[in-house]
Amino acid sequence: MSLLSNASHRRFNPLTGEWVLVSPHRTSRPWQGQVEKTHDPDRPRYDPTCYLCPGNARANGARNPTYEGVFAFDNDFAALSAQVPEEDFAQNGLLIAQGEPGRCRVLCFSERHDLTLPHMSVPEITRVIEAWRDETMRLGALDAINYVQIFENRGAAMGASNPHPHCQIWATHSIPNEAAKESERQRAYQEQTGSCLLCDYLALEQSLGERIVCRNDHFVALVPFWAIWPFETMVIATRHIGSFDELTGGEAKALADILKRLTIRYENLFETDFPYSMGFHQRPTDGAPHANWHFHAHFFPPLLRSATVRKFMVGFEMLGEPQRDITPETAAARLRDVSETHYLDKPI
Amino acid sequence: MSLLSNASHRRFNPLTGEWVLVSPHRTSRPWQGQVEKTHDPDRPRYDPTCYLCPGNARANGARNPTYEGVFAFDNDFAALSAQVPEEDFAQNGLLIAQGEPGRCRVLCFSERHDLTLPHMSVPEITRVIEAWRDETMRLGALDAINYVQIFENRGAAMGASNPHPHCQIWATHSIPNEAAKESERQRAYQEQTGSCLLCDYLALEQSLGERIVCRNDHFVALVPFWAIWPFETMVIATRHIGSFDELTGGEAKALADILKRLTIRYENLFETDFPYSMGFHQRPTDGAPHANWHFHAHFFPPLLRSATVRKFMVGFEMLGEPQRDITPETAAARLRDVSETHYLDKPI
Ligand SMILES: O=P(O)(O)O[C@H]1O[C@H](CO)[C@@H](O)[C@H](O)[C@H]1O
Ligand SMILES: O=P(O)(O)O[C@H]1O[C@H](CO)[C@@H](O)[C@H](O)[C@H]1O
Repeated sequence: MSLLSNASHRRFNPLTGEWVLVSPHRTSRPWQGQVEKTHDPDRPRYDPTCYLCPGNARANGARNPTYEGVFAFDNDFAALSAQVPEEDFAQNGLLIAQGEPGRCRVLCFSERHDLTLPHMSVPEITRVIEAWRDETMRLGALDAINYVQIFENRGAAMGASNPHPHCQIWATHSIPNEAAKESERQRAYQEQTGSCLLCDYLALEQSLGERIVCRNDHFVALVPFWAIWPFETMVIATRHIGSFDELTGGEAKALADILKRLTIRYENLFETDFPYSMGFHQRPTDGAPHANWHFHAHFFPPLLRSATVRKFMVGFEMLGEPQRDITPETAAARLRDVSETHYLDKPI
Repeated sequence: MSLLSNASHRRFNPLTGEWVLVSPHRTSRPWQGQVEKTHDPDRPRYDPTCYLCPGNARANGARNPTYEGVFAFDNDFAALSAQVPEEDFAQNGLLIAQGEPGRCRVLCFSERHDLTLPHMSVPEITRVIEAWRDETMRLGALDAINYVQIFENRGAAMGASNPHPHCQIWATHSIPNEAAKESERQRAYQEQTGSCLLCDYLALEQSLGERIVCRNDHFVALVPFWAIWPFETMVIATRHIGSFDELTGGEAKALADILKRLTIRYENLFETDFPYSMGFHQRPTDGAPHANWHFHAHFFPPLLRSATVRKFMVGFEMLGEPQRDITPETAAARLRDVSETHYLDKPI
């Protein structure tokens, strides 16, 4: 019996310091639980009821311009407000709170209501990446903002309340839990070894190959050794850069290329609109150099066995630790095996 | 403007060392996303296709006895196996794994397919608690087992694959992430202050009252100051005990009473079958005394605004940190305001 492919085991995530329980032998259990919706082929190019489509009215009464390509605006229902009391709250060392000023932005990827990243062209996705860079630089330059979190929730299963292709940007005063863990672990690794955690990890994965999904000159998509979600991936820059504002030469275009190819592979896996949450982890904007930060994206897709059966991170996961059924190596092999031509574009 | 009730702010969880973002002003945003199923009134007392009902065949061919009350057995699709190679895997300090032996048990609460905790009597729930104690002691005594995690996933929204009232018990060799964090924080607090974190926290909450939901002589149900889920609660023992095996006198019955009353309040909140994941955190069974461990339960229910609109912990939450819309104080007030008579039992 081999530990990593046949036995229940735990794997360590060096970026967060946490563990995941892996149960390679458990894939065949029957499923009588919740079933997800599948592909809706009839999404219109323009939806008069969508608050993100060009020219439409938003919930707060503002009207969108008749934009083409990307369009960014302040979220009408922002989770963070710019003005909060500069106050700390503390009672008995047990009730602790602090004001959290911030900004919430919405960024539409396209004027077209029916598009998604895998169906956009590389130049179109490159424009989105340029917008991510611009937003990062503009928000990061604000005094109150020390971290810029860009993320996309795609699909009803991932809480997206609108299918129009868009992402959100939440820029905060504090460094959120997950970024803070990665920051600390990258710092400690650099201190101990003198090199960059993700540079070393990427070199190791490139030499092994078994968890690589696809790559180009500037980016690699892989299933991390410590992946939690069944088909979780990371997209890692091959050059040691810390943030969107360091993308040069062909790197923005290469990132667009890898995002398109990876999301096509996802859609082809179960021949469905593939739900996920994804987002970028980049260097904090607090003014410190953070030279050990290595720019990367995480994709967290929930589907497990088919277009309708997802993984739930519930009881044991919430109270104990994340658990997965198929191994990261199997997941990577399956993602490698599918085509980079979208199943809907294939001649029938 | 008051920090805790009107402004975006962060609260600190002293049990885990992590933060939650609170956005009190954000409750009114429109929802066009996924809608949950509501109450299914026609569940039969016995379902011939249910693999947990008495006398039925299970997926692996075994047949359940014609049990009454509680019934426990080894999970047919266990995430943990008893025999795994005693092997550690490590490559370049970046790929780290270890064998994880363990046991997975299923515990039916009742022979009746249609019951749930809020509809069971206090003596019936007390039998369940005695079974939790027996399982904890039996599994905890095994050499390979250092932690016993009892949890219930209730409702399709929480990944329950079968509505028959039951919980699971996953007993592990290592101490899972969440229990390890709580263990470390309780230890550090004891070291710094000389007293127990949850004893002090409970005393503080009892004196303030605003986050208390309900209580009896031996247990208190409250919305913790740092709650993540909209109506998240903790059930905390008033006496400093570490585990099920220390329940004495009327404590098992008092725990049954508080579980029944709390779950009735949950059902009455939106007059629906109320989904949740819940579970107990108790002292590790690794043989060390863990005198600073304080026995408690967590309830993590997903519903936010109605029986059909839930909170999603997705993009920002996965990449950054948990975010909530209503304040813990508002949630506690709403749970306090509902009746302890189940809405279906009311004279119409
Ligand atoms: O064992 P079940 O109830 O089929 O499975 C459920 O609970 C498990 C433990 O929390 C999770 O790992 C599964 O994702 C979930 O669907
Ligand atoms: O802002 P949206 O898309 O309506 O909301 C979605 O993403 C947010 C950020 O991850 C989450 O807090 C919400 O729970 C989710 O439904």
